[in-house]
Amino acid sequence: MERHFERELEELKEQLLLMGGRAESIVLKAVESLRRLDEDLARQVFADDKAIDRMEIDIDDRCVRLLALQQPMARDLRFITAALKINNDLERVGDHAVNIAGGALRLAGQPLLKPLVDIPRMAALANGMLHEALDAFVRRDAEAARALVVRDDEVDLLNQQVFRELVSFMLEDPTTITRATELILVARNLERVADLATNVAEEVVFIAEARVIKHHAEEAGPEGDFGRS
Amino acid sequence: MERHFERELEELKEQLLLMGGRAESIVLKAVESLRRLDEDLARQVFADDKAIDRMEIDIDDRCVRLLALQQPMARDLRFITAALKINNDLERVGDHAVNIAGGALRLAGQPLLKPLVDIPRMAALANGMLHEALDAFVRRDAEAARALVVRDDEVDLLNQQVFRELVSFMLEDPTTITRATELILVARNLERVADLATNVAEEVVFIAEARVIKHHAEEAGPEGDFGRS
Repeated sequence: MERHFERELEELKEQLLLMGGRAESIVLKAVESLRRLDEDLARQVFADDKAIDRMEIDIDDRCVRLLALQQPMARDLRFITAALKINNDLERVGDHAVNIAGGALRLAGQPLLKPLVDIPRMAALANGMLHEALDAFVRRDAEAARALVVRDDEVDLLNQQVFRELVSFMLEDPTTITRATELILVARNLERVADLATNVAEEVVFIAEARVIKHHAEEAGPEGDFGRS
Repeated sequence: MERHFERELEELKEQLLLMGGRAESIVLKAVESLRRLDEDLARQVFADDKAIDRMEIDIDDRCVRLLALQQPMARDLRFITAALKINNDLERVGDHAVNIAGGALRLAGQPLLKPLVDIPRMAALANGMLHEALDAFVRRDAEAARALVVRDDEVDLLNQQVFRELVSFMLEDPTTITRATELILVARNLERVADLATNVAEEVVFIAEARVIKHHAEEAGPEGDFGRS
């Protein structure tokens, strides 16, 4: 029984890593569809998101089954409840990718405002965080997870930078307004992906140390979407 | 033991309702701080959010304790894992209120673009959904919850309307760009609150009927942030 439970936990970890891999891919694909204004690629994002949705349901069921059949205690219990939350976070990453692909569809047919530089960089940073957070989760590595929480600030700064640049575009040339607003929303979606990666990292610290760091970062001062710029 | 467990479940419900009430209040307060450009009120939102964060941790602990000590089966197990998720959703409502209050702070000192009409209406709709979703949760009323999922479309439509109106403002008068962009983001945050209420409603249907409706609405066609406007 004990060894069976261990194997079930391993399978849960593997499935979550697989889901994490899909979450990373979908973000990359969405940003790529935007960069190339490629409508077919944007539509693939919608299909990929459906697959992620189904995977969320599978993982959810697995967690509830583990809780019901194995009735795990303490550390494993925390691990499984954390897996439930992380699963939910990963599914939301897919939703943000869908939002970005929606922007790509709406922008297709018009020239891009400028070659995208900061937005792909935000995507790479957010994806890197997601990857490392999940890695820390399966290794129960609180140290690695803690280091990640700080990196969220980098993405927030990039988001503010993108926001200011796009507003200055709009001010100079009002014909850019619709396109620039779409890109502001894309940046916002990527910032949320980084937030979700941060959530995952916080869960890791929590289960590893049974300590909540979750709401500490916020004590530095609430700033809303773009800081008090 | 059985009756003790029932009492614990009742307490969990009450705490979630209390948390839901705070989530509604903080959204109202944030929108009011924006409507009146009241910096003090905006700052209260930050303080209220901290209280919601602490409450999330308490409810989380309560759920994990219930899982550990009572080892509930089937229906109650689903109820408690749903409570974990709903708790997380409610905490995020607080984050959206903080974003809105951040907008109010950044806008304070400048004249409002126009009297706010659609944004307070979005807030009222989103709050109404939140309230009814939680109500359906404690009553395990799948019928009421199912009716709610559809109402999310109303809020999405308002969001699109606000978006178009604000873009036309910017096109007419570029000096409004920064202020209009802030309001677009506020509308987005309210749309997310309605999404979170929808998540809660979906959980209710799920635990009541052990059927997943979660990802069905999306099959109507993915549209990203504002539909294919």
